Amino acid sequence: MTTNRLEAFSDGVLAIIITIMVLELKVPHGASFEALEPLMPKFLSYLFSFIYVGIYWNNHHHMFQAIERVNGKVLLANLALLFWLSLLPFVTGWMGENDFAKNTVALYGFVLLMCALAFLVLEKLAIKHEGHESTIGQALTDRWKERISTGGYFSGIIIAFFYPMVSLLIFYGIAILWIIPDSRIEQALNKTPEN
Amino acid sequence: MTTNRLEAFSDGVLAIIITIMVLELKVPHGASFEALEPLMPKFLSYLFSFIYVGIYWNNHHHMFQAIERVNGKVLLANLALLFWLSLLPFVTGWMGENDFAKNTVALYGFVLLMCALAFLVLEKLAIKHEGHESTIGQALTDRWKERISTGGYFSGIIIAFFYPMVSLLIFYGIAILWIIPDSRIEQALNKTPEN
Amino acid sequence: MTTNRLEAFSDGVLAIIITIMVLELKVPHGASFEALEPLMPKFLSYLFSFIYVGIYWNNHHHMFQAIERVNGKVLLANLALLFWLSLLPFVTGWMGENDFAKNTVALYGFVLLMCALAFLVLEKLAIKHEGHESTIGQALTDRWKERISTGGYFSGIIIAFFYPMVSLLIFYGIAILWIIPDSRIEQALNKTPEN
Amino acid sequence: MTTNRLEAFSDGVLAIIITIMVLELKVPHGASFEALEPLMPKFLSYLFSFIYVGIYWNNHHHMFQAIERVNGKVLLANLALLFWLSLLPFVTGWMGENDFAKNTVALYGFVLLMCALAFLVLEKLAIKHEGHESTIGQALTDRWKERISTGGYFSGIIIAFFYPMVSLLIFYGIAILWIIPDSRIEQALNKTPEN
Repeated sequence: MTTNRLEAFSDGVLAIIITIMVLELKVPHGASFEALEPLMPKFLSYLFSFIYVGIYWNNHHHMFQAIERVNGKVLLANLALLFWLSLLPFVTGWMGENDFAKNTVALYGFVLLMCALAFLVLEKLAIKHEGHESTIGQALTDRWKERISTGGYFSGIIIAFFYPMVSLLIFYGIAILWIIPDSRIEQALNKTPEN
Repeated sequence: MTTNRLEAFSDGVLAIIITIMVLELKVPHGASFEALEPLMPKFLSYLFSFIYVGIYWNNHHHMFQAIERVNGKVLLANLALLFWLSLLPFVTGWMGENDFAKNTVALYGFVLLMCALAFLVLEKLAIKHEGHESTIGQALTDRWKERISTGGYFSGIIIAFFYPMVSLLIFYGIAILWIIPDSRIEQALNKTPEN
Repeated sequence: MTTNRLEAFSDGVLAIIITIMVLELKVPHGASFEALEPLMPKFLSYLFSFIYVGIYWNNHHHMFQAIERVNGKVLLANLALLFWLSLLPFVTGWMGENDFAKNTVALYGFVLLMCALAFLVLEKLAIKHEGHESTIGQALTDRWKERISTGGYFSGIIIAFFYPMVSLLIFYGIAILWIIPDSRIEQALNKTPEN
Repeated sequence: MTTNRLEAFSDGVLAIIITIMVLELKVPHGASFEALEPLMPKFLSYLFSFIYVGIYWNNHHHMFQAIERVNGKVLLANLALLFWLSLLPFVTGWMGENDFAKNTVALYGFVLLMCALAFLVLEKLAIKHEGHESTIGQALTDRWKERISTGGYFSGIIIAFFYPMVSLLIFYGIAILWIIPDSRIEQALNKTPEN
């Protein structure tokens, strides 16, 4: 099976997830700039959710550029990733509504961790199906980014019950780490002449 | 006519259906984990709706991998399938809101039955148009899954008026039956060299 | 310019329009079937809106199967069609909310008329760009369906101020006329060997 | 990397943005045409938002017709453009709700300016990646439209604090300037034989 339709469906779901939070930005009644102030946390959480989903779209795009065929297991792993990503707007909203309380930051980190694990499972199943000699197999021999992220989210969840602000710094640090697209795959694609 | 655009439109509608229920998960005001408890039925129904629509997407994808050309009748049958699937979030929500009352489980089963029948009609029209010698015709000579599902939904609707929990078990059992992608089509595709 | 992206964008907008009304079906609190009764007009208007947008998608699909290249004017005409179609859920809702009052049926007919005219303009611009010798030009030499529809909508708007039910019958009759996909284009496509 | 998926994702996000405002058109309870009057500002802002997003889609489409390959930076610039466009419905709504008060027109102009700058950055990065000898590089040597727009938005923001109606005229004038698709790219595409 080719990857076209998996990509199209994922694009559709991600496009909806990325724009869901803008619906939360209700127009205030006053015309002064002060009337916009109560919306700032919601705006910031929209911005952050947009960046995070954007990063996942970016890396999803990079990964499937290097994948040529998928099977039923890869389709299911992709659905699992979309499910966890779809919970991001909710947990970001809960965190913003409660001024970054301990519980809310911990749950937020948990959903980020599940997204990362789902992405990892998707990557592993794709490599297994394509073969370690394939473009994707060659590109992802070393997974330091994935290891750092998973460890970071995990420790962030525990730290959240003591110093939630430290957890947020960890989560934002991981986002910056991933905002640079996966140059490993771009390099591997350049090596293979047929791409 | 090729199947590209039918698939793209279906992907769009399914992507919206699958994410509609996440809009029902309203952010609670408290920061404690207890504040999330009242959301659990809605969360579970979102999860279940996600899985069910995901299964349909998966099998829709498998079916159209084996189909090369469509006609006007197939387009109409596809619209009918999308219509019944779009009612899933509503009936799942009604069931969750009323603690799985008899009526709600019966209506839920009815919509699942109509989705299954619409899928069956779509399959039959596609085979008729492609020919019994085609990839899809060869793949779907035996329809035990379709027969079990239709029978299961039908008996589930009647049982719901007496033991709604038994009906739910039947519906979840059918979901598990379908979560394994249609290997018949994967096998048939592997047999035909041009795919 | 090829038609791929125009089709993809139109599919996205139509997929959203077609599912917007399902959001209006709010889950009722009671578990009895009587609790669903107040939702029937909304359900019927959702069903009708689904069918109408489905018909437009279907004919849009047929038309662009026969079109190979588009220019800027065709893109703008397509946007105009999408705009009028996006107003369908609103006018259908207004009509359902007010038990098919005269004004509401007239406005409803007006939006249907504008959709039909926008489709006609799109068709004309496409033929002009492709040439009268092209597949689309050959397929649409005779436009009796378009003429009947436009006339029907126009008279329906005026009749609505006296007998709104007659107008509705006219509108539903036109829908049935179009539910059969445009076989003229299917025939013309079959004549041209390269499709 | 090819541009297919960037276009598909952008189409999805733009399709959602363009239809978000139709959700704001709540069905009024009365059946008289007067009952629709309070909706007129919302309808006009929906129309305007539709036109503006439509223009951006149109020019985005034209630009990527001339682009063959993208890199990670272009993907990020595209996400930035989508983010600013997604704020258009909110600022248009705030302006309509407050009868075009000074602050609201200024913020509205600010978002239009950020969209224009994001589009400019995207264009520059695309040309840098494709090379000045490429189709896109040849098409966009002269950027008078971009310069006029940026200047117009900038002065419009400042003028809004004194004469908001003048700012609106400037913004609408720029929209008309862009409603004519980028014929520079159409001409350059016609020159290159492979397109």
